[in-house]
Amino acid sequence: MHHLTAAELDAEGTEHPYDADTRVEATADNAFAATISERWNALGGIANGGYLLAVCLQALRHTLPFPDPLVASAFYLRRGAPGPAEVRTELVRSGRRTATGEAHLLQGGTEAVRAVATFTDLRQATGRTLDLDGMPDLPPPEEALDLMAGGSLPGVNIAEMVDYRMPRLPGWSQGQPSGDPRVEFWMRFRNGRDADLLSLALLVDAAPPAILELGEFGSSTIELTVHLRAHPAPGWLACRAQTRHVIGGYHEEDFELWDATGQLVAQSRQLALLPAASR
Amino acid sequence: MHHLTAAELDAEGTEHPYDADTRVEATADNAFAATISERWNALGGIANGGYLLAVCLQALRHTLPFPDPLVASAFYLRRGAPGPAEVRTELVRSGRRTATGEAHLLQGGTEAVRAVATFTDLRQATGRTLDLDGMPDLPPPEEALDLMAGGSLPGVNIAEMVDYRMPRLPGWSQGQPSGDPRVEFWMRFRNGRDADLLSLALLVDAAPPAILELGEFGSSTIELTVHLRAHPAPGWLACRAQTRHVIGGYHEEDFELWDATGQLVAQSRQLALLPAASR
Repeated sequence: MHHLTAAELDAEGTEHPYDADTRVEATADNAFAATISERWNALGGIANGGYLLAVCLQALRHTLPFPDPLVASAFYLRRGAPGPAEVRTELVRSGRRTATGEAHLLQGGTEAVRAVATFTDLRQATGRTLDLDGMPDLPPPEEALDLMAGGSLPGVNIAEMVDYRMPRLPGWSQGQPSGDPRVEFWMRFRNGRDADLLSLALLVDAAPPAILELGEFGSSTIELTVHLRAHPAPGWLACRAQTRHVIGGYHEEDFELWDATGQLVAQSRQLALLPAASR
Repeated sequence: MHHLTAAELDAEGTEHPYDADTRVEATADNAFAATISERWNALGGIANGGYLLAVCLQALRHTLPFPDPLVASAFYLRRGAPGPAEVRTELVRSGRRTATGEAHLLQGGTEAVRAVATFTDLRQATGRTLDLDGMPDLPPPEEALDLMAGGSLPGVNIAEMVDYRMPRLPGWSQGQPSGDPRVEFWMRFRNGRDADLLSLALLVDAAPPAILELGEFGSSTIELTVHLRAHPAPGWLACRAQTRHVIGGYHEEDFELWDATGQLVAQSRQLALLPAASR
């Protein structure tokens, strides 16, 4: 496969795939057309849940009077499929500081994702700041290992869109899951697009799941909550992903993203079900 | 104040306040009447967010074909007030293993809480179990200190409903916030009612917020997500609450509950805004 460089994209005047694939177009009051791309397929060859949430948030951004998603919760009802989609939105409440809306992503008239989100203007946040937890201690990205240098995962198109740099290759990628589902690494979009705040809702779900280190092959997300805490600085994002509790096949995955200046920019938690338990 | 003992409650045939105050009554298809009690008021004298979520989940339990809330997300739109409320519900999707529904809690015709939840039958969960994180290391509850022995907090009625036992009294309760918003303690309902799965959605939000140790007096919850992971054994619940990132006045609070057998039973995360930032 050929990756366009930032220069090539600029030269072509081409939109970055993230922008093209999360674009929504108003078709009526509170109704938007979108196209689900297969470029963001995750394990199992299904559309990545964070990507579908990002599409919902793009529609909500047109619906709500504030620019920045602050917290979003998505319930995954059915698998997303490549092709056309409709996003229907509702302004639930609009206040002085925040507004809350709901989005339903439908394909073929059937709802695949239900999301609720509160937006604000983060640049107007005036309260105190206090970080009691540091960013991951990682080697510089240029000294870290490219997760995909050894090859690609069949059907996992999202790895062609996102660049992962690891201090060491994960056990699962060597056929020897470590048993420890707590991983730290760097991530960014390929092809020279820096992450903006909204795109963090995609990126928190864009890495190989931590439970691969338990010898599990993927997992089905039931619900994903994302807190979008600060506009990220350009460049690489440091990531910490971990699963601490697997009970009856259900497990959480916590994910945190810091920008290159050491600022926490997003936190997420999802509840998912291991494939052996979902058969 | 007088606390009814379990024996007194039994003798009177009286319902426990938790059951009385989260009761809903069907009034029409997908519509339920509830009464918001002031017995669960938290800091600031407003209805506790976890309590309002529990009322929503009681209505959803009547709407969905599975008994156990598995994951719920609530957005707090307006303060809850003591008095009558209506809960309108929607069955969003019903599958073989799970069902998802939405609940709107209204007071005076105005929506105060919007919640989405997925229910299942946790007793049918057949996948693997793996705990990579132990319960808090606490002295036995009978050797721990009663947080409220020194007096009550004005307006915080919930402390008359919930019993907190701490290895040491928190700094904020001595007028000297420690600066470290990570706390571990025991909790249970007063008056002899053991927690059941659904009530954990109330209990994850029922303790004094971790940010009291930062010298802050309360916080407004914007969104609360709860994962309900296992039916709790009877008895005390071990709790771990922590806030790690305050940015521009916004902060998360993570909360975990273990039962007395050492099983994780619930995890929650909320996004909230400090009061100085919300003026």
